[in-house]
Amino acid sequence: MSLEEARALDRSDPLRAFRDRFVLPEGVVYLDGNSLGALPKATAARQREVVEEEWGNALIRSWTGAGWIDAPQRVGAGIAKLLGAKPNEVLVADSTSVNLYKLLVAASRLSDRKVLLTEAGNFHTDLHIASGAAELVGLRLDIAPRSEIERRIGADTNLLLLTHVHYKTGERFDMAAVTARAREAGALTVWDLSHSAGAVPLRLSEDGAELAVGCGYKYLNGGPGAPAFLYVAEHLQERLDSPLRGWMGHSAPFDFTDDYRPAPGISRFLAGTPPILSLMALESGVRSFEGAAMDALWLKSAALFDFFARLMDERCPELVCVSPREAERRGSHISFRHPNAFEICQVLIEDGLIGDFRTPDILRFGLTPLYLRFEDLWRAAEACAAVLRSARWREPRFAVRGKVT
Amino acid sequence: MSLEEARALDRSDPLRAFRDRFVLPEGVVYLDGNSLGALPKATAARQREVVEEEWGNALIRSWTGAGWIDAPQRVGAGIAKLLGAKPNEVLVADSTSVNLYKLLVAASRLSDRKVLLTEAGNFHTDLHIASGAAELVGLRLDIAPRSEIERRIGADTNLLLLTHVHYKTGERFDMAAVTARAREAGALTVWDLSHSAGAVPLRLSEDGAELAVGCGYKYLNGGPGAPAFLYVAEHLQERLDSPLRGWMGHSAPFDFTDDYRPAPGISRFLAGTPPILSLMALESGVRSFEGAAMDALWLKSAALFDFFARLMDERCPELVCVSPREAERRGSHISFRHPNAFEICQVLIEDGLIGDFRTPDILRFGLTPLYLRFEDLWRAAEACAAVLRSARWREPRFAVRGKVT
Repeated sequence: MSLEEARALDRSDPLRAFRDRFVLPEGVVYLDGNSLGALPKATAARQREVVEEEWGNALIRSWTGAGWIDAPQRVGAGIAKLLGAKPNEVLVADSTSVNLYKLLVAASRLSDRKVLLTEAGNFHTDLHIASGAAELVGLRLDIAPRSEIERRIGADTNLLLLTHVHYKTGERFDMAAVTARAREAGALTVWDLSHSAGAVPLRLSEDGAELAVGCGYKYLNGGPGAPAFLYVAEHLQERLDSPLRGWMGHSAPFDFTDDYRPAPGISRFLAGTPPILSLMALESGVRSFEGAAMDALWLKSAALFDFFARLMDERCPELVCVSPREAERRGSHISFRHPNAFEICQVLIEDGLIGDFRTPDILRFGLTPLYLRFEDLWRAAEACAAVLRSARWREPRFAVRGKVT
Repeated sequence: MSLEEARALDRSDPLRAFRDRFVLPEGVVYLDGNSLGALPKATAARQREVVEEEWGNALIRSWTGAGWIDAPQRVGAGIAKLLGAKPNEVLVADSTSVNLYKLLVAASRLSDRKVLLTEAGNFHTDLHIASGAAELVGLRLDIAPRSEIERRIGADTNLLLLTHVHYKTGERFDMAAVTARAREAGALTVWDLSHSAGAVPLRLSEDGAELAVGCGYKYLNGGPGAPAFLYVAEHLQERLDSPLRGWMGHSAPFDFTDDYRPAPGISRFLAGTPPILSLMALESGVRSFEGAAMDALWLKSAALFDFFARLMDERCPELVCVSPREAERRGSHISFRHPNAFEICQVLIEDGLIGDFRTPDILRFGLTPLYLRFEDLWRAAEACAAVLRSARWREPRFAVRGKVT
């Protein structure tokens, strides 16, 4: 496994041209696109236009003239393509946390059942939002270990909340099977797609998914804190009422009426005025996928994973891979366990290999097929091996964290 | 009242230099800064830096390296100066609608009382959000005419929700008096400052205000859909729990714990990840006030109002002013009633005078002292007079709205 082999793989990569769409700083190998996607070059130009022309010169007229007012639905329809959903089933709004709250509260009202079931060690914002929602609507939160989730779905389950690809390990649920299992038991499932959207092939309609939320700033390259999206299957839309009755979700927001009438369809899940600069950057990020089929991206992701996993097995056996090896059981990142993951991560970043640390002992690397080369991963494995062999991660400056062995 | 007089007023305006901080397109008189503030020139440069340097080159490292992670509190502290609040009492987060929801739900839990009192014809998102919150926490929404509000505050009033400056007429409540009246009756008041912040002098601490929300994209010049702010008086912060328990409001967001522990102080009102591009533009917008005291801005606002009101009385008597003439009873916009306000507004915009229409018959003009000249208002009155005297607003193209007389 040499640099030459990596370069040969890059030469035969059918997606190699997409890398040119992104700003990637010199001297950096960026394996954190699952936390903050890289800047598409088109976004830089587009943001200047949005700020300087649309806001600066056209001012308030851009709400209609530049299509700001329809952006939540329009960008949602763009994301729907990546999710295997209908264009009118996805909306961009607020943050993942806020969208999750809307769906949990709205969906919980469809049944008298009293349990909201979710996974221990789920991304914490999901657990916290669920606890807040459950408290308000009178549900009991049941936080179960991953291995027991399916068994616990029962006659008292109102909602099942799961993250499709685990933020730490990358483990992936079988969406079709779990959704069907819950539906048989009379429960609705809410999927968090934050580590899935733009990363793994999704077929929400085909898999019978009914409710989902997800993040705009990871694989969708929407920029820091980009607005999030939510998905509501068409057949459910008119049955759900958002608890956050903001004016943008009103059926006639410019009638300024005292009474609330939810907009038809997905638009009722809008709340307040969306952050347009961030929303336009997300639109541009979603466009960076144009011409790349999700299935082709996934093939490359799987190849990147296998290549990197083999390199790391060989050169960094101290780092224990905790992500599933079988492609269909994981997402597009790879994680390793090491007692000094924190210190190693800091030293790697100093060396220009950007991944991230997840407490207490996980070193996580995002494998983004749109802009990563096999050569980047070869360099990443070299950097890891060099750092592990050095004494730098044992330096006294890390003693403050009290974890230096 | 001639153009020369207007220009003389501009020459003696101590704030005249501030206009240079803004992009103001040629051939436009912009009287809609109360709906979307103009673009500060510094923001255009700053956005390039945020997008191209901080996101593009520094990538994920900017969360700490460029101060993104502290921006909600930092920008909040900047806004606090304009509100007469302590720096740790204001936070930037989400939209006005979502922030209002958080405060209503959180504050309602402090008492067993069952009524949420608000004003008929209040900005509709306030009424709708209030209805959604009231339904969930079991409050009854009492929507009373403005003249009856104070009388209706009683032993059953849990919360009073009022917009400080009315979005349509510009009428302003006496914050200190109303807050005191509610407090005497044992109720908390939530103020919506959307048309007040950056427009009228506010002294939240001095006036005993306890809870407030407001908008970033109007007088604060934060850009389209800029994130909103919320204010919680220090003594209440630890007693309130946000129903939206997003990870950013956790006491240790990077510990990724299953249990929720709210952050100390104002930070507990953060929910999900904030939209950084929009948030940085807001920071830049708030900085456009640097060096201008709110009291000086208000003096100019009042002078602009008086000058424009007199001009309009003289030249456009068909337009009936519905805003209070006494400065202390109003905000920084002026509104007129006319049965064809919609059509007149459209024709004025075509002529480069940008104000806005509010259903059913209001023509509204924002008077923003940071960047408006008396000369602009002289031209605005000329434009109004010319349009009213023309037949253009009676053209058949407007017949579709069925309001042409």
